Amino acid sequence: MNANLLRSVIYMTALCALYLSLAMFLPAMVDLYYGHRDWQVFAMSGFMVGGLGAAAALATHGPPPVFNKRLGFLLVNVLWAMFSVVGAIPLFLAEHELSFAQALFESISGITTTGSTVIVGLDTMPPGILLWRSLLSWLGGIGIVGLGLFVLPFLKVGGASIFKLESSETNDKPFARLASFTRAFLIVYVLLTLACTVAYDLAGMDHFDALNHAMSTIATAGFSTHDMSFAYFDNNALLVVGTVFLAICSLPFSVLILLAVRGRLDTLRDPQILVFLGYLCVISIAVAVYHHLRNGIELDDALIHSFFNITSILSTGGFASDDYTLWGPFAVLVAFFATFMGGCSGSTAGGIKAYRFVVMVNVIRAGLNKLIYPNAIYPVRYGSLTVDAETQRAVFLFVSLYIFLWVVGSIGMALFGYDVLTATSSVITALSNVGPGIGPIVGPVGNFSTISDPALYLLSLMMLLGRLEILTVLVLLTPVFWRH
Amino acid sequence: MNANLLRSVIYMTALCALYLSLAMFLPAMVDLYYGHRDWQVFAMSGFMVGGLGAAAALATHGPPPVFNKRLGFLLVNVLWAMFSVVGAIPLFLAEHELSFAQALFESISGITTTGSTVIVGLDTMPPGILLWRSLLSWLGGIGIVGLGLFVLPFLKVGGASIFKLESSETNDKPFARLASFTRAFLIVYVLLTLACTVAYDLAGMDHFDALNHAMSTIATAGFSTHDMSFAYFDNNALLVVGTVFLAICSLPFSVLILLAVRGRLDTLRDPQILVFLGYLCVISIAVAVYHHLRNGIELDDALIHSFFNITSILSTGGFASDDYTLWGPFAVLVAFFATFMGGCSGSTAGGIKAYRFVVMVNVIRAGLNKLIYPNAIYPVRYGSLTVDAETQRAVFLFVSLYIFLWVVGSIGMALFGYDVLTATSSVITALSNVGPGIGPIVGPVGNFSTISDPALYLLSLMMLLGRLEILTVLVLLTPVFWRH
Repeated sequence: MNANLLRSVIYMTALCALYLSLAMFLPAMVDLYYGHRDWQVFAMSGFMVGGLGAAAALATHGPPPVFNKRLGFLLVNVLWAMFSVVGAIPLFLAEHELSFAQALFESISGITTTGSTVIVGLDTMPPGILLWRSLLSWLGGIGIVGLGLFVLPFLKVGGASIFKLESSETNDKPFARLASFTRAFLIVYVLLTLACTVAYDLAGMDHFDALNHAMSTIATAGFSTHDMSFAYFDNNALLVVGTVFLAICSLPFSVLILLAVRGRLDTLRDPQILVFLGYLCVISIAVAVYHHLRNGIELDDALIHSFFNITSILSTGGFASDDYTLWGPFAVLVAFFATFMGGCSGSTAGGIKAYRFVVMVNVIRAGLNKLIYPNAIYPVRYGSLTVDAETQRAVFLFVSLYIFLWVVGSIGMALFGYDVLTATSSVITALSNVGPGIGPIVGPVGNFSTISDPALYLLSLMMLLGRLEILTVLVLLTPVFWRH
Repeated sequence: MNANLLRSVIYMTALCALYLSLAMFLPAMVDLYYGHRDWQVFAMSGFMVGGLGAAAALATHGPPPVFNKRLGFLLVNVLWAMFSVVGAIPLFLAEHELSFAQALFESISGITTTGSTVIVGLDTMPPGILLWRSLLSWLGGIGIVGLGLFVLPFLKVGGASIFKLESSETNDKPFARLASFTRAFLIVYVLLTLACTVAYDLAGMDHFDALNHAMSTIATAGFSTHDMSFAYFDNNALLVVGTVFLAICSLPFSVLILLAVRGRLDTLRDPQILVFLGYLCVISIAVAVYHHLRNGIELDDALIHSFFNITSILSTGGFASDDYTLWGPFAVLVAFFATFMGGCSGSTAGGIKAYRFVVMVNVIRAGLNKLIYPNAIYPVRYGSLTVDAETQRAVFLFVSLYIFLWVVGSIGMALFGYDVLTATSSVITALSNVGPGIGPIVGPVGNFSTISDPALYLLSLMMLLGRLEILTVLVLLTPVFWRH
């Protein structure tokens, strides 16, 4: 750790805070237009954060640092901590009463694109606060994709180095590529949001609902402008639109960009995409058939609702069109385990993610063969790539830590007095950045408004740990990180 | 696969069936003595199995085979299948009505030392059937220790090769050592059983209860002769005796032998022992303090019950002195997660086991350090040994499969109509060979008598998979196993 490194971290964080403060003027304008006095809160927060950000940026301006891993890890952590607190400021100050823990939870739920909410009465909430939540998740989505595409592969976190290999093979000017790639990504992200807004609009939402749900859909966050989420609209066309866009945004944005910019359909042959779409379809169809047979729901209706809710969970979007926990124990358990799974790397989805399952299954297959022929070589493949031992280990390490954090977090929630289902499902839904859990409190028709402040802090920590792929945070706790 | 190999597998299985048939005459004599007509069932089963076993052994007698891995894997699977079915025969035929699925479940529960029961009314059951259950679990315990000490390290299953290294270092005549080791093991096993019987007797059980509970304790099985398990006796001295013997039998028998035969206390410094006793004490004390504070139970009473029930779970014994699921959500969740953990390798305990946690924690520590210095070498240690990459991978592979089976099994139970808690906890208690689960049906005051036959088959499969450390069974499903 040296002074120049810390200075640059503060500089970049201050710069990002400045950008975020600008975003506060959007809800301010909306609330002003609709005549709600929360506009003052947003404007004041914007000026305050903007001023502080500008001052800090000016004070720490200096020569650019040498980019190394320490800087990377520290920057990611400090940036997300800043987003969490700054995002919470207007929520805490707004007219709708929230404790600081609640405001922080809501903010973190947004920027981690989780979409769990502590707010009851969304339907009558002033538009500024609704737009701010959507904005936080939409901006969070951009941050997550950046993290997944550029930062984690470089930091070699959790087996993400598979994707570093892939990109460095085709490219010898990383920074030139980074700039053009970022531009392409932002264009695709904005276009997807607009397309989704128009689709929701055409399918029956009003303009404001369409825009908010689109932002939250593209970020696979799951914030709604209604307490009942998609159940409020009772409109199957909306569910189909939501399913399609949630599924698209669970795919790697690198692939979406190549598809959009160069029309390269072959990029869809990425094993994680095939596996993700595979388990998405298998689980959705299985649950639909179960729902049809057990509860006598028409098969087309069952399919639409099952696809929507399962895609919601697997994309870590977390909208709900119905209380699927009433569909029967099979649906409940599938929803619970699906909460661990997640989408693809380099998307806005969270969870353990499909590529890790691909690696694990191939390691297990090789391991079984080796039991018979211990001296034979069974390479572990990921598509056309060979996964080295280091990356295999990183994948297992990540999954073990994931489950370990789930266990520790659940025990923490039990100590705060929550029952087994609420405790275990609220922690995994936070860690995977999904949104709803299981049970009457945090289930798809519940919300987090009755959760106590200490428990909210615990869940907030879980959301951040999950979003930053755990190791990025834990590495700060190792002595070796702070050694000169 | 060749004919000589199959012949030898049948020969050895037939021989073991012959030995097992001899054991059936013990409950026959007891039932005859007490004048219960089940004696005919046991005698008839004994003659039938003995006759079949002898005939098959004579028919397949021949030159000893070359011992290789294929033979090892096949033999273990066929042996346990034979034990399961043969053990079930007298249970199925006895006067107490059981379906075949129930009899098979009870038998597998015995020989895998799980201790879950489908029988209600144990208190008034004829003594023969009670003794047979205890015998099955006691013999199962011998099988398991043999498996853990000799077979699994040789087959390199699930990271057990750590312990192969250890023993092959000090020894160049493995078979001579094996014979003397087996003799020493049997002596220690019998002496421990006698000591436990006497201790239970002195603490207040009658002779028959003392012997049965001792057999089931030393095998860490958990079959009781009363529906209420240890709660029937309402005697804290018995709980202390049980705790001590369950904890002892969760330690590696190789260590217990060195301790008993050569008085070598230094063998207790095995990392898995320290870690196992460490988490045993931490969890027991935490639950006791919670029970004391939340439910106002006297601290000494809380400690005795907490230590007994937690040791019961961690040793995979599965006795119960109280319905600890009523102690509060923290106790429930701890009991649930403790069901995954298990004891030491080479003991009668099941579960993931302490040495795998040691390896995983050290791999995670090395992995975190490597994130900062990717080119530095951080060897993964197990005590004074270095754990090679292959063994690390085997450990993660095992744990992943363990969790995968839990997920698949739970979803199966949900499809059979069981609620989330019953489904998830019954599968993990089967897989870890513990005994009780969570919830009103399979919890510590419940039993498996109302579980449907298909679900019992599923749970029976889980018990066998867990007991044989999964890979031993799954390897039979790989094409490479059956190739010439």
